[in-house]
Amino acid sequence: MSRVAPTEVRTVTCVGAGVIGGGWVAYFLAKGYRVVAWDPAEDAEQRLRHLVDAAWPALTELGLAAGASVDHLTVVDTLAEACAQADFVQESAPEDLELKRTLLADISAATPPDVVISSSTSGYGMTEMATRAEHAERLVVGHPFNPPYLIPLVEVVGGEATSPEVVSWTADFFRHAGKSVIEMKREVPGFVANRLQEALWREALHMVENGEATVEEIDLSITDGPGLRWALQGPMLTFHLAGGQGGMAHMLDHFGPSLLSPWTRLEAPELTPELRDAVVEGCEREADGRSIDDLVAERDRGVIAVLRALGRA
Amino acid sequence: MSRVAPTEVRTVTCVGAGVIGGGWVAYFLAKGYRVVAWDPAEDAEQRLRHLVDAAWPALTELGLAAGASVDHLTVVDTLAEACAQADFVQESAPEDLELKRTLLADISAATPPDVVISSSTSGYGMTEMATRAEHAERLVVGHPFNPPYLIPLVEVVGGEATSPEVVSWTADFFRHAGKSVIEMKREVPGFVANRLQEALWREALHMVENGEATVEEIDLSITDGPGLRWALQGPMLTFHLAGGQGGMAHMLDHFGPSLLSPWTRLEAPELTPELRDAVVEGCEREADGRSIDDLVAERDRGVIAVLRALGRA
Repeated sequence: MSRVAPTEVRTVTCVGAGVIGGGWVAYFLAKGYRVVAWDPAEDAEQRLRHLVDAAWPALTELGLAAGASVDHLTVVDTLAEACAQADFVQESAPEDLELKRTLLADISAATPPDVVISSSTSGYGMTEMATRAEHAERLVVGHPFNPPYLIPLVEVVGGEATSPEVVSWTADFFRHAGKSVIEMKREVPGFVANRLQEALWREALHMVENGEATVEEIDLSITDGPGLRWALQGPMLTFHLAGGQGGMAHMLDHFGPSLLSPWTRLEAPELTPELRDAVVEGCEREADGRSIDDLVAERDRGVIAVLRALGRA
Repeated sequence: MSRVAPTEVRTVTCVGAGVIGGGWVAYFLAKGYRVVAWDPAEDAEQRLRHLVDAAWPALTELGLAAGASVDHLTVVDTLAEACAQADFVQESAPEDLELKRTLLADISAATPPDVVISSSTSGYGMTEMATRAEHAERLVVGHPFNPPYLIPLVEVVGGEATSPEVVSWTADFFRHAGKSVIEMKREVPGFVANRLQEALWREALHMVENGEATVEEIDLSITDGPGLRWALQGPMLTFHLAGGQGGMAHMLDHFGPSLLSPWTRLEAPELTPELRDAVVEGCEREADGRSIDDLVAERDRGVIAVLRALGRA
């Protein structure tokens, strides 16, 4: 392909300048890219510049790339003008499948055929979004988390028509741009993090609906409970440490029966020996030689650092 | 009642000295209490002292209460000896309903009848655990999070036989001891945080089982994604900010349809106007006058502080 290398991207086009699109604009500017933005809303430029200005102190504190400047943002009047200049396109339109289908077709028609076009969609697959687009081989999902200028994660996944080379190009580009990337091998609705977040969110909605907890109690239960651990160790490693010296193996053998408890409205999978072993072995791979004591010490240092950082120690 | 005031507790008895019980021992010692511990395991004292020693540097860094010392720990040989001296009992036995029923009956028989007995159970209700106990009116759930010496949250909830006065006494005691308390009005299996955590955990297990994500990807998706936000703003306030200036109201009206998406195996409740309003009004109460811009600025400062604290900025 004659596509520019992931490290050689200079101009990023951002289509859509709401909370997510505007967050991307701020991030790419801070990383030293030239950014061209387009959004059909009347007051889009004003809102976008407000959002970039609000994010800039945070980005400055984290460290701007050499030469990074808000002056490298150009807001243009037409999609065609925005896309013609792109080395990479990030689409962040409202979450509406019909709109995405049409917009991605329009973007693809307006963008040089080698240029990768990535969508911020929260959960649609590129297979269902790319139905009307030509050159669909360069359409890919690059799903960020709000705010994209601070949260590192980007989930990258292609559709049926996406070239595998485009998926790895996109993952490389986001990594080069400082992101933390999950490169998915196949389409799963909601990707990874949103499936987990959505399960929690739906359980929370059920609890509010049933009068089991208030909105404030739900938030407190996370910020003062598991949320303090999840900033540093994910749910798997968290439970690896809940098992004491026996780790995840002991945890599953000890708490496995609670999978049958009505602790959430979500049915659990059967804890087959295969699933148990997959989880245990995954934790061991992730621990990568660190003992339970090592991980406990890391967690404790991390929780203390987080509590202190948030002024709560 | 002749019960000691929550502020006048001097001696805490910890029954069970595994990961959770031992964590409680370390916490109460650091807060200046005298702690009496009992555990039937052969090597319980050795493991307990190892755990307390491992936690002590963290607790020292966070600030010990005046006079706090590991020397104020006594490990005794019998449950009766442990309970006779208690101003408050925290039970942290393995998560086994039959065992809890018998043990709580034994603890209640051995403890002066005015003394509150709290269980660390991860999800059983006190109604089902207290079936064999006399003086069940002073039995209550006080559910901590691992490690109890660092994570602030304790969920307090009584059973059918529990006196409401005991529930509020226990909440007051834990607050006085420096904990963040959710005082539940009625029993819900798994309480609040474990229901949310369990929904996420079950979705994660389904994803591993179906080959949709690896253990490492699941953890990365949280630590580098929503987990960074949840240390400072819970899932409700997080989504309040996902709606831009329109807040939760806009978010629900915009992303509400995604509740119908297959983004998790958990069925969503119907987003009735009543549920929508309850969530929106809860967020407004929680925001307590802070504008979206205020909350965005708080979140950004918080995420940056957390990233810096974890050495990831």
